[in-house]
Amino acid sequence: MEKFNPVDHPHRRYNPLSDQWVLVSPHRAKRPWQGAQETPALEQLPAHDPDCFLCAGNTRITGDKNPDYKSTYVFTNDFAALMTDTPDAPESDDLLMRCESARGTSRVICFSPDHSKTLPELPLSNLQDIVRTWQAQTADLGQHYPWVQVFENKGAAMGCSNPHPHGQVWANSFLPNEAQKEDDNQRRYFDAKGSPLLVDYVTREQQDGSRTVVETDHWLAVVPWWAAWPFETLLLPKAHVKRITDLSEAQRDDLALALKQLTSRYDNLFQCSFPYSMGWHGAPFNGETNDHWQLHAHFYPPLLRSATVRKFMVGYEMLAETQRDLTAEQAAERLRSVSDIHFREAQ
Amino acid sequence: MEKFNPVDHPHRRYNPLSDQWVLVSPHRAKRPWQGAQETPALEQLPAHDPDCFLCAGNTRITGDKNPDYKSTYVFTNDFAALMTDTPDAPESDDLLMRCESARGTSRVICFSPDHSKTLPELPLSNLQDIVRTWQAQTADLGQHYPWVQVFENKGAAMGCSNPHPHGQVWANSFLPNEAQKEDDNQRRYFDAKGSPLLVDYVTREQQDGSRTVVETDHWLAVVPWWAAWPFETLLLPKAHVKRITDLSEAQRDDLALALKQLTSRYDNLFQCSFPYSMGWHGAPFNGETNDHWQLHAHFYPPLLRSATVRKFMVGYEMLAETQRDLTAEQAAERLRSVSDIHFREAQ
Ligand SMILES: O=P(O)(O)O[C@H]1O[C@H](CO)[C@@H](O)[C@H](O)[C@H]1O
Ligand SMILES: O=P(O)(O)O[C@H]1O[C@H](CO)[C@@H](O)[C@H](O)[C@H]1O
Repeated sequence: MEKFNPVDHPHRRYNPLSDQWVLVSPHRAKRPWQGAQETPALEQLPAHDPDCFLCAGNTRITGDKNPDYKSTYVFTNDFAALMTDTPDAPESDDLLMRCESARGTSRVICFSPDHSKTLPELPLSNLQDIVRTWQAQTADLGQHYPWVQVFENKGAAMGCSNPHPHGQVWANSFLPNEAQKEDDNQRRYFDAKGSPLLVDYVTREQQDGSRTVVETDHWLAVVPWWAAWPFETLLLPKAHVKRITDLSEAQRDDLALALKQLTSRYDNLFQCSFPYSMGWHGAPFNGETNDHWQLHAHFYPPLLRSATVRKFMVGYEMLAETQRDLTAEQAAERLRSVSDIHFREAQ
Repeated sequence: MEKFNPVDHPHRRYNPLSDQWVLVSPHRAKRPWQGAQETPALEQLPAHDPDCFLCAGNTRITGDKNPDYKSTYVFTNDFAALMTDTPDAPESDDLLMRCESARGTSRVICFSPDHSKTLPELPLSNLQDIVRTWQAQTADLGQHYPWVQVFENKGAAMGCSNPHPHGQVWANSFLPNEAQKEDDNQRRYFDAKGSPLLVDYVTREQQDGSRTVVETDHWLAVVPWWAAWPFETLLLPKAHVKRITDLSEAQRDDLALALKQLTSRYDNLFQCSFPYSMGWHGAPFNGETNDHWQLHAHFYPPLLRSATVRKFMVGYEMLAETQRDLTAEQAAERLRSVSDIHFREAQ
């Protein structure tokens, strides 16, 4: 009988962080595409747009005026999905129609006053400010909420409604689904092995190298073994760090470099502003030791074949299981084969 | 203190089928939208398109010729994500990099030779043929595979690359993630209560009525208590039925009517061809009794506010938890307020 070969044969890979499988169909990359085309963001935007709600000095929809900020700037979302003072819902033991009250807040983090730039195009010092802002927001909101979700939606394909470089931070009075799953699964591994899952994983990926995309002094970005999105990456500190607030100065400054290199490779892959959602997961602020936790960032980019053809997580994926058309190793190889200097800076 | 009110206050609802929570932010529906616009499919297509791979009598990309079919027509996908003869992957107890071989097949189900029609516009007799085809495919593939996934991706927004009315059926040598979760959670409920989760749920929804969208003699469609997508629905037989192959003749024919009414309401909501992914879940073919299983179909439609503004499940949703802007009851009310006769048939 023919020997199993992961580059030719459909297989499933296991994600130990989410306890879910991914179906990999490497032979399928050849099928023609006649479906929807994305509109890549290729035009050069102005450094200041008088109609942008996020540009320095402009007035927002609520009438509030943005200050004349020079680096990062944070304000509470004018249409926050959570409120700080929601009353408790009545207790219920209804198994079929269960509900609980949710409290929290959501803030917008402007990355830079320059409307025309995205992360890879910002100077390292600005990226360091962004990391510091992520840390300060996490420290602040972590005093009051068990879960602080820092994230960025980039590009119209990822539901982003404004090209001004910005991210968000949402604080939650509860552990959201994904946080709860990662907490459970990292704990289970730690209980079995005595070491944190993602710390062991970093070691394995450093030894292997086939899924590595970026490596700096303190950080490693890989297309994880279990990647769902075509060019998904996982960005990890090499040392054991539980939360973004625990980074040393050297780790923090080096993170700016890792971010610049990773997002430059993304943009260079299809010579466009690469859409993605990214965000940080770290130990919850729940008063526990949380030695099983390792800080990490997920990057979930939708593009599959070009600046205009994306992967759709639809039908089979929604009803059965995530499916991908190229292996994690093939995706990492593609990302390694482009420069880590952004195509606009190289010109 | 103010009293909790689910129409004004952010809250979380629990999905007992998936064991996941959904964040509901009903006050957020007012935020302005400046992001991506979908392109609604409004044009009248021809009944036969010579360039369509699915139209009767046409030649496909592989050179195979479609027969001159009159109702439904099934063929093996020319770019299937699974193959029937994949060799076994070597056994491994690696906790961090686990992999297993996956076997299966995937077929395309043309719903009608008429290129210009979608489900709600087809005559009832054609819809009955579609249900019979779903049954026949499930029975056939269920002899060889534990999981048979019948689904339809409709519209460019759901990654569908051809407007010809069609769905798919994928067979799997394994229980995919979603099937495994529903199996576990229905079993847990059955063990605790002695009755199937979704049979109890149907009774509760019939008594309540506030989430009902369509009710026929044998079927109930509701926006489930735990809906994730804005106008998501769950379609259930009123009686206990484990698999689509177990439907009585009366249940089967009545399903055609329920499908026609539900999809007509969808199209009428924003007067467009409403995109969605839908699919069937029933007891696996794993040789067990499976009394905990109840047959059901999920409809996952992305539109939120109009034919052009969709919900994006991105940043917070991918990294933390699904979030929605209107309650399930509000969504059901909107779908009940439009006609169950399709706007094109009413003209
Ligand atoms: O099979 P199709 O229609 O070519 O492809 C579509 O449905 C598949 C099954 O849900 C998905 O994996 C693809 O991403 C989607 O584009
Ligand atoms: O907050 P924004 O940018 O207006 O909205 C975007 O991000 C949110 C958080 O991921 C999502 O809930 C919205 O669906 C998306 O459009």
